[in-house]
Amino acid sequence: MDYVFNAWYVAGWSSEFGQQLCSREMLEQHLVMFRDSKGQVVALEDRCPHRQLPLSHGKRIGDQIQCGYHGLTFDCSGRCVRVPGADNIPKTAYVDDYLVQEAHGIVWVWMGDKTLADTKDVFSLPQMNDPNWCTHHGGALHLKANYLNVAENLVDPAHVSFVHPTTLGSEASEDIGINTETDGEVITVWRWIKNASPIGFFREVGGFSANVDRWHYYHLHLPCTAVIDFGSAVVARNLQEHERDQGVRVFAVHLLTPVRAGYTIDRWVHIRNIAIDDETLSDRMDELFKIAFAEDKAILEAIEEAENRPQKRRPIRIAIDRGPIVFRRRIQALIDAELNSH
Amino acid sequence: MDYVFNAWYVAGWSSEFGQQLCSREMLEQHLVMFRDSKGQVVALEDRCPHRQLPLSHGKRIGDQIQCGYHGLTFDCSGRCVRVPGADNIPKTAYVDDYLVQEAHGIVWVWMGDKTLADTKDVFSLPQMNDPNWCTHHGGALHLKANYLNVAENLVDPAHVSFVHPTTLGSEASEDIGINTETDGEVITVWRWIKNASPIGFFREVGGFSANVDRWHYYHLHLPCTAVIDFGSAVVARNLQEHERDQGVRVFAVHLLTPVRAGYTIDRWVHIRNIAIDDETLSDRMDELFKIAFAEDKAILEAIEEAENRPQKRRPIRIAIDRGPIVFRRRIQALIDAELNSH
Amino acid sequence: MDYVFNAWYVAGWSSEFGQQLCSREMLEQHLVMFRDSKGQVVALEDRCPHRQLPLSHGKRIGDQIQCGYHGLTFDCSGRCVRVPGADNIPKTAYVDDYLVQEAHGIVWVWMGDKTLADTKDVFSLPQMNDPNWCTHHGGALHLKANYLNVAENLVDPAHVSFVHPTTLGSEASEDIGINTETDGEVITVWRWIKNASPIGFFREVGGFSANVDRWHYYHLHLPCTAVIDFGSAVVARNLQEHERDQGVRVFAVHLLTPVRAGYTIDRWVHIRNIAIDDETLSDRMDELFKIAFAEDKAILEAIEEAENRPQKRRPIRIAIDRGPIVFRRRIQALIDAELNSH
Repeated sequence: MDYVFNAWYVAGWSSEFGQQLCSREMLEQHLVMFRDSKGQVVALEDRCPHRQLPLSHGKRIGDQIQCGYHGLTFDCSGRCVRVPGADNIPKTAYVDDYLVQEAHGIVWVWMGDKTLADTKDVFSLPQMNDPNWCTHHGGALHLKANYLNVAENLVDPAHVSFVHPTTLGSEASEDIGINTETDGEVITVWRWIKNASPIGFFREVGGFSANVDRWHYYHLHLPCTAVIDFGSAVVARNLQEHERDQGVRVFAVHLLTPVRAGYTIDRWVHIRNIAIDDETLSDRMDELFKIAFAEDKAILEAIEEAENRPQKRRPIRIAIDRGPIVFRRRIQALIDAELNSH
Repeated sequence: MDYVFNAWYVAGWSSEFGQQLCSREMLEQHLVMFRDSKGQVVALEDRCPHRQLPLSHGKRIGDQIQCGYHGLTFDCSGRCVRVPGADNIPKTAYVDDYLVQEAHGIVWVWMGDKTLADTKDVFSLPQMNDPNWCTHHGGALHLKANYLNVAENLVDPAHVSFVHPTTLGSEASEDIGINTETDGEVITVWRWIKNASPIGFFREVGGFSANVDRWHYYHLHLPCTAVIDFGSAVVARNLQEHERDQGVRVFAVHLLTPVRAGYTIDRWVHIRNIAIDDETLSDRMDELFKIAFAEDKAILEAIEEAENRPQKRRPIRIAIDRGPIVFRRRIQALIDAELNSH
Repeated sequence: MDYVFNAWYVAGWSSEFGQQLCSREMLEQHLVMFRDSKGQVVALEDRCPHRQLPLSHGKRIGDQIQCGYHGLTFDCSGRCVRVPGADNIPKTAYVDDYLVQEAHGIVWVWMGDKTLADTKDVFSLPQMNDPNWCTHHGGALHLKANYLNVAENLVDPAHVSFVHPTTLGSEASEDIGINTETDGEVITVWRWIKNASPIGFFREVGGFSANVDRWHYYHLHLPCTAVIDFGSAVVARNLQEHERDQGVRVFAVHLLTPVRAGYTIDRWVHIRNIAIDDETLSDRMDELFKIAFAEDKAILEAIEEAENRPQKRRPIRIAIDRGPIVFRRRIQALIDAELNSH
């Protein structure tokens, strides 16, 4: 499995990181993490350079980690500050450290070359800071599927008609074409379904029953963050693209963490412009999303198994695949660029 | 694992195939199957040519299957008849279809070159159509063992003395030699045990207590169907080979499906010439066979594990191995012939 | 995984071997074992030379084993004495036999070249035969870890301060250097911790509360037996090395059996010079050792996983590693010598 390393990836919700040492696997790297005495989340390589015991099996002493086997002790920069029973500390006694950023209750780790990291690149949406919008942390979906297939699913509006017929899609959208556009590191795929019966999600969340205009904009921020902007408005409003805030508008944000080949975590957040203080609605939206995401999980895990079988023929590509095709090409270009820069 | 593809293999009992899509693995091929509106069982390659989702995750619409990911739809011949969102259907949008035959409540699939299939080759015994005989579907034994070892066990009368001492064998037969004969695609191995105490099975099923003459004829129909003709008669009758119908005669038919390397399903049927309307007897025979087949399973699964270890020395061959040796040689010849014909 | 084959290894406690056939895996070899009519434990290769069924699936007939598949029968030397249905017995019909020794309630098997075996090399400590000492069989710790890492842990006094802080170690010993000495096939690593608070184990077992002098001598008998001689005495006694019997002295003996790569059994025995008739104390010592050995198991299994990941850098070595370094070098020399002698 190949990854884009020079990027910020989600290690977890802020609430997951406290005094205790915890371990995380991301891009096949193993990290030990904790929140230091100043409140900053620390991430180090989870492997003692001596006998390779993961440091997460050790204990925290102040802002240092003591290995659980022979007591080698490391500070927050990964430098070894003590080797019990030895007079001096070898230069090779260190572990890698990682840059960490925290924003909107989410902890991000830079997995690549630290000289290339820019905290401005940590993902954010303007609505997350806007009091007119409600931002709600959903859950973490663990998928036995590789991250490319999971991300591809998030730049693919066509699947909702067939995978999520009771929640996010309907027959009305089955044959509607898609538009694709790439702007820098963001791939956008979208379509409008005009004058159609509202989908299950907006019947509940928006209270619609008569026909609506409905939009789906899928923005995939390379490498691994997807923002699905979808909403509905009564047909009579004749809502235009730039007027989406006037309808019932929801952002489903998917923060993918490739764990290893065949395993991905999708942490998701939703943002809305209606009933922003209504926690019951947030909970109900969680429920509806969980139904839909369990449907994605079943599909993606079955594909993972199928792809691991011998293949008789190359898969075919069809019209709706433009988003995924662009995504695959761009990811591969990023991976190649990193490999060539070494 | 190598297989003979040009043959009919059992996919299941007729009762397993209805309106619902179901999946089967046979010879490492994955099939989606259902019974169409005319009652015919359909078998297609279980893999959408687009994103490789198994079609068994989709849904049936009339006699077509709609893929559960993007709605590509296939008819019973495997031809794609719809690609949602696209103006035309690529020529490569198809899945393989398989020939299916149903007989005596058993569904058979031809796994190889369709031009070589002949429905006359679907296995049958004359007794299955004979009102003087009772044919009873037993069960399906799943074995973590390769099909060659399972089949070998079914052309090997010598093992019953040691593996099935309470049901199908006894000490009396331990040292009795075997006869072997090959006629076309059928290998027959047999022996008579004259004037010996009845085995457990015939004490119950035949009501014998005094000494009997007992026969075991193992007919292995290449590649994977075994008919074990065994029976007993009181010694005074001095029954000859051609008079077996005059004794208590039972056929245990084993229909092997090689699923993948190290996994085989053995569906079994029994046929008898006594008490043909007595369902209690059928049930009791099932119980006795289940005891015996569990003994085979334990042996065959232990051998599977042992064969996967490094081998210090080549296995030895002994007198009773003639049936298995002929079987292995014939199977290998069939596999080689198929490979050379490509 | 490489092993030293020319050595005695533990197959189990004497009580594990009775009339029934049982199977053991040692050094990736599979053995069938039982106690014969004279009380001698027998060990044979657990694989019928005919169809490779493990003989442990067969049955014992007198002092012979009959294979559970076709009845081939083997005597205690591994020679085949019967092939049912055959007139003669092939020369290649045999299984390997192993030398077995039993001492102090422990059954040892010689895994290598029988011409090199010497029963005098079966491990023993003088205290095991001494009525002034209590020898107690502890338990069997199963570790998902390779035997080299397990053995290394047993020639490494430094880890106890960090892995066993409540039982066998304490902060007082964290920075105390170690001494290493090799004498023939025994590597000894030791240190004294003078005038320090007693460790948890000796508070309970020795009844100490004031400061003590404490010693740890780790004797690793190549390849796989470790004797940990540790004890305490009140400081005022000013106990010398040769006077250890005058303190509270305990031997923890670890008998390692490498099962296969990544799997090791550590059977342990403890021996003491106080309260030798007090079974309650034996039980309490078992409990304390179980706490400590569970801590080792957690560490060693985590290292096993970590070592199986791709390694970015070579592990570093530090001052306390002298025992493990000598051990690794000596084991490798023994393995190389065996390979070169073939």
